[in-house]
Amino acid sequence: MRAVIPYKKKNAKSRLSNVMTKIQRETFVELMLKDVIGSMKEAGITNIDILTPSPEEVEDGLGVSVIEDEADLNEALNSYLVCQNEPVLIIMADLPLVRPKHIREIISSDEEIVIVPGKGGGTNILYIRRPDIFRVKYYNSSFENHCNIASQLGLSLAKYDSFLASTDIDEPNDIVELILHGKGLAREYAKNNFVKKEGGNGRVKYYPLQHSQKFLSS
Amino acid sequence: MRAVIPYKKKNAKSRLSNVMTKIQRETFVELMLKDVIGSMKEAGITNIDILTPSPEEVEDGLGVSVIEDEADLNEALNSYLVCQNEPVLIIMADLPLVRPKHIREIISSDEEIVIVPGKGGGTNILYIRRPDIFRVKYYNSSFENHCNIASQLGLSLAKYDSFLASTDIDEPNDIVELILHGKGLAREYAKNNFVKKEGGNGRVKYYPLQHSQKFLSS
Repeated sequence: MRAVIPYKKKNAKSRLSNVMTKIQRETFVELMLKDVIGSMKEAGITNIDILTPSPEEVEDGLGVSVIEDEADLNEALNSYLVCQNEPVLIIMADLPLVRPKHIREIISSDEEIVIVPGKGGGTNILYIRRPDIFRVKYYNSSFENHCNIASQLGLSLAKYDSFLASTDIDEPNDIVELILHGKGLAREYAKNNFVKKEGGNGRVKYYPLQHSQKFLSS
Repeated sequence: MRAVIPYKKKNAKSRLSNVMTKIQRETFVELMLKDVIGSMKEAGITNIDILTPSPEEVEDGLGVSVIEDEADLNEALNSYLVCQNEPVLIIMADLPLVRPKHIREIISSDEEIVIVPGKGGGTNILYIRRPDIFRVKYYNSSFENHCNIASQLGLSLAKYDSFLASTDIDEPNDIVELILHGKGLAREYAKNNFVKKEGGNGRVKYYPLQHSQKFLSS
């Protein structure tokens, strides 16, 4: 089997722009990628491809293959899948809470498709035993899309239930989960750049440590 | 063992008031309670206590015991715990995604404490083998509080990792998870009262079907 991580660094994570500068977001997304690669390797996955429109953005020495494709996410992934003749794990780069245990459990499933939902209808991880016949449809309700595609193809499907693996770090409110439940490089970075603010009986939130004018006005 | 569900219906779920009227929230919280009770019973739990300041708000015929306590959540739960001489599962009423499988797994753990985090630092489920020595501290960073209390008491602790059990329905953005991943009464109610709105590449959101002036202005 092999794993593929779609990746783009430049101006990444725009929905965090109220709480991180562009430079911070680009640093952060790189640390999250390293966390994900680390968990994959610890789970025993040796063939890891980074699928990116900008190969120069992928640091050397990560022990991965870099595949360039300037097409959009779905087109690039589907071009990738059609060429594979072994099971493929598609995992997003913004999952620093994923642990090796999750990866091991997902790839040892008996089902033909294993899906880990993201927050708000997304797909965080997709394990595809037969990449030659499956096509992905990310964005919007991709969790429903992928369940429907599996069903149309008559493929058995398991929904993998994990808070950690389902927590993609995409919006300011996700930072609290990373700091509370994470343990890698991205968590360390968030911990050093955000500060907790408790208030009332609602959910805890973290705010940027450096209250630049930009952040304060948001 | 026994389970306890803290419950308050009147003007419940105030953080949903931008998307639900007071009447709707009160109906909704009751349906979520019924979903939770249903999952507990299906998991084989027969002793279920509802801890509430307003016993008249608990519908008859639910097959539960109702315990009145007007004190705040922590005080009421700690008064309850001190009287118990068997393991106690504390489960919040806003967890309509919890399945019997989760409950079975949690109560069959070997650890002295099992905790299911909520979103934003909360505690959704807390399983306590020795309720006579454990005291709860809900609100704010209750997940951290409960981990610390267990550690101070020298009690072994398991963190239970489930997206479904960690999804408390508290804020408008949680509705999408209920509709996509739920299957009980509260999900049906949400499905009948909200409509999907996709836009851009971000997370899917659901909005109230009846766009009253109040909701539109929020």
